Amino acid sequence: MQSRYFTIGDYPQGTPQRELFELHETELPALEDGEVRIRNTWLSVDPYMRGRMSGVKTYVEPFELNTPLEGGAVGQVIESRDARFPMGAKVRHMAGWRDIAQVKGDTLEALPTLEVPEQAYLGVLGMPGMTAWTGLHLVAEMRDGDNVLVSAASGAVGSLAVQLAKARGGTVVGIAGSQEKLDWLEAHAIKAVSYRGKDAGQLSADLKAACPEGFDVYYENVGGVCLEAALDNLRLGARIAVCGLIARYNDDVPSAGPSNLDVILIQRVRMQGFIVLDHWSQYPRFLEEVGPRVANGEIDYEETIEDGLERTPDAFLKLFEGTNRGKTLVRL
Amino acid sequence: MQSRYFTIGDYPQGTPQRELFELHETELPALEDGEVRIRNTWLSVDPYMRGRMSGVKTYVEPFELNTPLEGGAVGQVIESRDARFPMGAKVRHMAGWRDIAQVKGDTLEALPTLEVPEQAYLGVLGMPGMTAWTGLHLVAEMRDGDNVLVSAASGAVGSLAVQLAKARGGTVVGIAGSQEKLDWLEAHAIKAVSYRGKDAGQLSADLKAACPEGFDVYYENVGGVCLEAALDNLRLGARIAVCGLIARYNDDVPSAGPSNLDVILIQRVRMQGFIVLDHWSQYPRFLEEVGPRVANGEIDYEETIEDGLERTPDAFLKLFEGTNRGKTLVRL
Repeated sequence: MQSRYFTIGDYPQGTPQRELFELHETELPALEDGEVRIRNTWLSVDPYMRGRMSGVKTYVEPFELNTPLEGGAVGQVIESRDARFPMGAKVRHMAGWRDIAQVKGDTLEALPTLEVPEQAYLGVLGMPGMTAWTGLHLVAEMRDGDNVLVSAASGAVGSLAVQLAKARGGTVVGIAGSQEKLDWLEAHAIKAVSYRGKDAGQLSADLKAACPEGFDVYYENVGGVCLEAALDNLRLGARIAVCGLIARYNDDVPSAGPSNLDVILIQRVRMQGFIVLDHWSQYPRFLEEVGPRVANGEIDYEETIEDGLERTPDAFLKLFEGTNRGKTLVRL
Repeated sequence: MQSRYFTIGDYPQGTPQRELFELHETELPALEDGEVRIRNTWLSVDPYMRGRMSGVKTYVEPFELNTPLEGGAVGQVIESRDARFPMGAKVRHMAGWRDIAQVKGDTLEALPTLEVPEQAYLGVLGMPGMTAWTGLHLVAEMRDGDNVLVSAASGAVGSLAVQLAKARGGTVVGIAGSQEKLDWLEAHAIKAVSYRGKDAGQLSADLKAACPEGFDVYYENVGGVCLEAALDNLRLGARIAVCGLIARYNDDVPSAGPSNLDVILIQRVRMQGFIVLDHWSQYPRFLEEVGPRVANGEIDYEETIEDGLERTPDAFLKLFEGTNRGKTLVRL
């Protein structure tokens, strides 16, 4: 059986170009004992993948050149030599960026059986959703009534973070770009502030107008002016969960950091970076808390979908254009 | 009885000038019930006082203009209408910057009775010492064997932080300026690195040479290039205790922050600002742990002493010249 997959032949500088991604086809070998063959139905593209294209170890190993890229995927078992995953089983795994995956059964997770579309396990109930919940509850230790600020608030992670925060009271403010994203936030009772065309001072003033008492928690996905403006608006004892710094992922040359880091001292701020994989043992707890609220419609989520394996690089590159909403997925 | 005291008549921009400080003399009123009169013997000057001269609330209220300045002091009761503090009692209090203090007994602490010079309660066993211990143990949660980096490592806070860290194993590196300070550190088995004339890249390379495995804890007193160089040398899960950012206290215009804040994400760093007053309830625990080690000579400390009330502003201003070592004090 043939498998088609994407590779990169080089580690790009700056924003990757479409030409970086090469589509290949190969004949899969016969299954070995313990292996499973999966027809992928949904592929995930995520901002963290940019880090794996940098050729240096960040918090995950870089992608290997000229080797199938990796990423979250959901699919159905079509051939199996692992009794735990029989033909027809729905599974989640990391052999994305391809149509047919052949992997060891040990690398698979059976999909839970909640009444949600299967691709939800790549988004609101997958890695991005778990990231939102982990940052808010385990890292920032949000308390009931806390005022919460979220950057990239309509993204896959941010859109869940704002809803989880809103459910626990306090003022919740989301930073986003396009009018469409701002409207989505406002429709969910989140105060929306645009970052477009603003320097840190202007953004800071707008955040102050949205939440004059300041924030107890800042859920950081962006960095840059968002971080500087957020620091200006923190309350005593505020916690910053640093989930991502997408503003900088494509920088060739490092940019200067915020000029107001003294806020960390003045307001006794705790700023903590985290990687969701370090907390994955808590996934069952997340699923138990958030899964039913997704299934019953209490938690809303959006998807930006591209169709066809060939479009996977395009879906990925859109993450850096700010045109996606919610979870970005490829449907095969 | 006359009391002589210092005031400021204005909130300075940039580095304060000697002329800012005005010496006054006043006749003290008769003691009211509950009040105590103290002949100060030692006055403390500390970097945080610069923040109180800025006219804006930082983590403490600004000094009031044309009103006696405040600061740590040790002295002896010479008249009392509070039975808890009889004539001759040795006390610590915040009515410094003056020779004779007249305050409510509620604002006094009786000096502990360890075999140490009384001025130690303004330094190694006072606020700076408690700050070192708090940052290292309560904020950074240092573990045995951790590699620890301390900036301003020969200062009142840093010089205790490096010794406390060294006693718990691991490589301890101190950043300081003059050769004399570096020598002091090396004499205490601390690896010493000079920041003088270096940009962040050079300082980072020198820190790497001193501790190639990187640091688990960074005790931050300085900011600026020290912070940037330290970030480059952190290990996974490192903790930064932000005690001070003296590099910036006299800035008119905020300087840019470090360009490598992404380390916080990559290495899952926790960076936390703290103010020792928030932790003062732990002072007895600190005294119990550190006091005997100071009394028996196991912990070494240095003092930079100016003589006479008139020299108090000079002692204070030296804090920003980097010429002081250990705790800076005024002896009356």
